[in-house]
Amino acid sequence: MNLIGGIEGGGTKFICAVGTGPDDIREEIRYPTTTPGESIGRAVAFFRKFDELRAVGIACFGPLDPNPKSATFGYVTTTPKPGWANTEFAGVVQRELNIPVGFDTDVNAAALAEYRWGAAKGLDSCLYLTVGTGIGGGAVVEGKLIHGMMHPEMGHIRIPHDLAVDPYPGACPYHGDCLEGLACGPAIEARWGQRAETLPPDHPAWGLEAHYIALGLIAYIVTLSPQRIILGGGVMSQMHLFPPIRAEVQRLMNGYIQSSQMMEGIDDYIVPPVLGNRAGVLGGIALGLDALNAS
Amino acid sequence: MNLIGGIEGGGTKFICAVGTGPDDIREEIRYPTTTPGESIGRAVAFFRKFDELRAVGIACFGPLDPNPKSATFGYVTTTPKPGWANTEFAGVVQRELNIPVGFDTDVNAAALAEYRWGAAKGLDSCLYLTVGTGIGGGAVVEGKLIHGMMHPEMGHIRIPHDLAVDPYPGACPYHGDCLEGLACGPAIEARWGQRAETLPPDHPAWGLEAHYIALGLIAYIVTLSPQRIILGGGVMSQMHLFPPIRAEVQRLMNGYIQSSQMMEGIDDYIVPPVLGNRAGVLGGIALGLDALNAS
Repeated sequence: MNLIGGIEGGGTKFICAVGTGPDDIREEIRYPTTTPGESIGRAVAFFRKFDELRAVGIACFGPLDPNPKSATFGYVTTTPKPGWANTEFAGVVQRELNIPVGFDTDVNAAALAEYRWGAAKGLDSCLYLTVGTGIGGGAVVEGKLIHGMMHPEMGHIRIPHDLAVDPYPGACPYHGDCLEGLACGPAIEARWGQRAETLPPDHPAWGLEAHYIALGLIAYIVTLSPQRIILGGGVMSQMHLFPPIRAEVQRLMNGYIQSSQMMEGIDDYIVPPVLGNRAGVLGGIALGLDALNAS
Repeated sequence: MNLIGGIEGGGTKFICAVGTGPDDIREEIRYPTTTPGESIGRAVAFFRKFDELRAVGIACFGPLDPNPKSATFGYVTTTPKPGWANTEFAGVVQRELNIPVGFDTDVNAAALAEYRWGAAKGLDSCLYLTVGTGIGGGAVVEGKLIHGMMHPEMGHIRIPHDLAVDPYPGACPYHGDCLEGLACGPAIEARWGQRAETLPPDHPAWGLEAHYIALGLIAYIVTLSPQRIILGGGVMSQMHLFPPIRAEVQRLMNGYIQSSQMMEGIDDYIVPPVLGNRAGVLGGIALGLDALNAS
């Protein structure tokens, strides 16, 4: 049996797992993210124990370089995280273990995992959006993750912001009131003076949140036309957000796209993740499988 | 030599051509769009003359069904154009000529033609946006056009609209002040009381237009991360729009995406079409080539 290693390299913790998919995880470890040398070194030491390991996939915080043709492929690039800017990651793992290594953003990897094993299984395309400390999106089109100039940074679209309704200026250090700046968890907390998870379901925070997320989804729908949209992340663990987001997407679209998904099937179109908080490390395994198949 | 037929089926005129690509067009006809039967019939009659014709590609106005797995594949669907709603197009041509037929939107086809033979030749991905009577976009990712639920309708993203600066409510019958509603040719004419092409280059109309188009490009860039953006259509024939659009994209992005394309290479990143007004019918030929290769 070919085993695959997955790394979810997050800003605060690392998760490493070995297996073949969500129903077959042989072993898993997690530890706090420290220096690149120590954090990557612990992953390599863990993977060395498995003789049958054939590939590794890395789902990493970004920005990073996912382009195999690039000189800096496999590097974390311009992150503000201390010690991690311009850090080689995939190449180190590849040289240490001498097996194929896949490398992509954590949210792209989660999109791939939900496409392969989760909420978009059996479809040709999907969008995965995480709404938490930040907002990020990944998309699969005809079975492949979207890349190009680099990787998507979907949280940073500009959306309408009515200052008379919501005077909060936005939390994004680059753009102020981009989608992430208006709708990420820290923006909710800053606007209302308490943590998002402590706000009751009937609090006006949630109607505003649904409106902003729906404005983002409109942009992604008309740009990508995904067959399903999966909303994950800490803020979206508030399941009561799903019905108002769906209703607001329909209201804003106003019948323009007359697909069955948009009209009568919206409850199956905008859905929660199936893999939950395991999408990241499983995404790593999915990236490793793809790296093995491409090698 | 395998010849390919291309149809650009527009709302006002049809263009049909036979050849193998932009440097080898054997014959071309154009005629006004009338009823579906007559318009499609003239195309079929034209193509019958070519014994070596091996496939046809149709670049058509939409909305339409481009999904080969769908029961209504090859149909124009919900168009308001009289007589054309729910019209079978690709299937009619396929049965009459008994060769493979490709079918997609005119703007997707133009994106494919620019990717294969034009401004994005040699890249893996591109975005083509047309700004004219309406605004539409097509995107190629790793050599394939984006499809999913249906096809992109990129003009209908919602963007910030400062009513104090621009009180014009927008021209879109579905969404009012979506990007198309604010920045299409008819919106410029309605806002300023004269046709866009009669406004001098120093008119304030153009700064506003560049701002709106840049807001749209920000959304597409962070969602798709295309390797190049091609701006075509009647409004973009005002070449003086390119420098302010590039500058506004950089200002709005504010250094967040530190790729060479965004930072120092923006003049080669946001560019005019190479194929010009031939992108549609050449896109039809490109779709026909793909249909032949897939058959």
